[in-house]
Amino acid sequence: MTKIPKPIKKPPDEAELNSRLEKVRNLMKKENLDYYVAFDPVNIYYLTNFANYVHERPFILIIPKNGTIKFLVPLLEKTHVETRARCELELIHYFEYPAPKGQNWNDEYRKLIEKDARVGVESAMTLRIYEETPGQKIRTDIIDECRLIKTDYEIGRTVHACKIINQGHDKLLKICKPGVPFIKIYSEVSSYMQGKVLKDLPNLNPMVSKADAIVLPPSISYDPHNMTNIFFTMEHGGPHVSGVGGQLDGYGVEIERSFFLGEVPEVAREPFQVMMEAREKAFELAIPGENFSKVDEAVRKIFQKRGYGDKLLHRTGHGLGITGHEAPFVAIGYDRVIEPGMIISIEPGIYLPKIGGFRHSDTVLITEDGNLSLTKAPETLEDLTLPVD
Amino acid sequence: MTKIPKPIKKPPDEAELNSRLEKVRNLMKKENLDYYVAFDPVNIYYLTNFANYVHERPFILIIPKNGTIKFLVPLLEKTHVETRARCELELIHYFEYPAPKGQNWNDEYRKLIEKDARVGVESAMTLRIYEETPGQKIRTDIIDECRLIKTDYEIGRTVHACKIINQGHDKLLKICKPGVPFIKIYSEVSSYMQGKVLKDLPNLNPMVSKADAIVLPPSISYDPHNMTNIFFTMEHGGPHVSGVGGQLDGYGVEIERSFFLGEVPEVAREPFQVMMEAREKAFELAIPGENFSKVDEAVRKIFQKRGYGDKLLHRTGHGLGITGHEAPFVAIGYDRVIEPGMIISIEPGIYLPKIGGFRHSDTVLITEDGNLSLTKAPETLEDLTLPVD
Repeated sequence: MTKIPKPIKKPPDEAELNSRLEKVRNLMKKENLDYYVAFDPVNIYYLTNFANYVHERPFILIIPKNGTIKFLVPLLEKTHVETRARCELELIHYFEYPAPKGQNWNDEYRKLIEKDARVGVESAMTLRIYEETPGQKIRTDIIDECRLIKTDYEIGRTVHACKIINQGHDKLLKICKPGVPFIKIYSEVSSYMQGKVLKDLPNLNPMVSKADAIVLPPSISYDPHNMTNIFFTMEHGGPHVSGVGGQLDGYGVEIERSFFLGEVPEVAREPFQVMMEAREKAFELAIPGENFSKVDEAVRKIFQKRGYGDKLLHRTGHGLGITGHEAPFVAIGYDRVIEPGMIISIEPGIYLPKIGGFRHSDTVLITEDGNLSLTKAPETLEDLTLPVD
Repeated sequence: MTKIPKPIKKPPDEAELNSRLEKVRNLMKKENLDYYVAFDPVNIYYLTNFANYVHERPFILIIPKNGTIKFLVPLLEKTHVETRARCELELIHYFEYPAPKGQNWNDEYRKLIEKDARVGVESAMTLRIYEETPGQKIRTDIIDECRLIKTDYEIGRTVHACKIINQGHDKLLKICKPGVPFIKIYSEVSSYMQGKVLKDLPNLNPMVSKADAIVLPPSISYDPHNMTNIFFTMEHGGPHVSGVGGQLDGYGVEIERSFFLGEVPEVAREPFQVMMEAREKAFELAIPGENFSKVDEAVRKIFQKRGYGDKLLHRTGHGLGITGHEAPFVAIGYDRVIEPGMIISIEPGIYLPKIGGFRHSDTVLITEDGNLSLTKAPETLEDLTLPVD
């Protein structure tokens, strides 16, 4: 596949959600589970299209090996679930948390699973829910496992989300001039993308939608997660590092570029070049049949050979799906074979105090015969040296 | 106390954070714990002033019964922690997740706690972290317990946050006219408040800051959590129900009103009146020495007596602190005595399909001799019937 699949804008239909449930049940069967319990809102969203956030009133999805899924929710959210969920569900509600004896969420919960059942639970389940879960509990991340390989529908939705951030990134590069405040770029590009998403998806779910755009100038870009001051401005030269992404109606995507305003400082040329070599190697190796660990290892080797082995802050990449940060991981120690339908970021980076950060990131689909970047922006030093007037 | 305390805008100093740590350690001593482990980002923020969100790279705060707190973080976040944290901390970092054998987060984690130690863990801890936690583990929510009673500093910060949402709510009532789209009110009021917060707190932490304003017209307001369509407009009449709040640089607050545009439909007069009686009763009873459960019970009795017992969707209120929704709960079944320094919402509500929702909410401080609303807005039917031109 070398052509980007068509973007999809409509919500999932019941057949799509049933196919996901079937995948989950196949894995349940392998582990001989009578039930699987989903508490992680991301996993609940994956199977139902309903999004919640975790607070004191629990939402718990109970998947029996056969028959209808049960969903335990607070009364206040019943109609919300009915309107958003797009699969068959038996809704069970409790009035409120806390509640008098016998009327609590856990009183209802305990009725839904037999005491001697084998019950799969997530690593992301909290102790509070775990301790109330009946049965013989086995920690196993079955839904997370299913989410690793995207369906065609999910790929189409991700393509749409990437289209929006590609446009956002184009806009960012146009606005970015020396002296322009970060806040201005952040708000203009973020609201531009939010407007686009709303136009495309008038029915979007705000619980799983957030589009952001940031850009760090060279005096800051070497320390990418230390955003403790937001009153800075763009600088002459570079590397500036952009980051455009978020979760667009349930699909996590990102695009990032190291770029220059007006000119390229001499000290920045070599690290940019080395980052590009590492990135090229990652794209070359991130193909079906290869091991994720090996990709990061090869990237790391390039950085070490070129004298930047101690200038790294992170792995080569991570998976994207419902969230913008999830398995699979392109990291030494993540011993897993790359498969078609996975979506990952490729973003090897070098960080040099007093010089800046060097990192491009793309949202990349693993195809049958290689990979395909769903994000598009200039890549070369030449194309990323932007005119300042 | 009848006067609202002075707003505080500056970040917490070390003495403030030390006093919180001392509270935690006092409770640890009572339970004979050698360590307490905080994984919930809200609890970590409470003790350190550093905010993270939960993702695949764990952040774990380890509190020994004596000596310096230890904080296990990914390398990428080390400088971020150093810049934000305002207490003494020993920082331990791991390079990345995942990592090769022997270099993972849990390899470091296991070194920090002895195998035979008594270790307190939170209900909000996930199984993933729990299973890697050494020692004899006891589930006990010590930090959550400390957070129930606010320090003077926290009260001052909450007063400031309420000041911002009071202004936001004033603006909302001014903009609200029949035919005005929800989206317009949402964006205008939200960005107005965000601007105000940024001006007051240029150093604010975006990880714990979000100010929102919503308003539901009568055709929707009876079903307050079912926000599945955002393309609606304000209507003639009412009750509209506003909701202004969020987390303003680490302090959760809210204000809500049922109000009318132009005129009050006859069918809305009685439920408004009944809601006001219930609310008055809640304010009367929410004082030190009373039981939270009793407050909700008394409110519920009024609703039942007046024939609205089956029109409720939620309890009388909830606690506010770092988040906008936490313990203590003003709910039947929450058997706990009200104490000075607690902050709660008082918001009994009635929901009538085809008529609308009836709910005022305020952020209320429990004082030595009663309570004090930190939020201010019109309350009576007369004052909440707004001119439409």
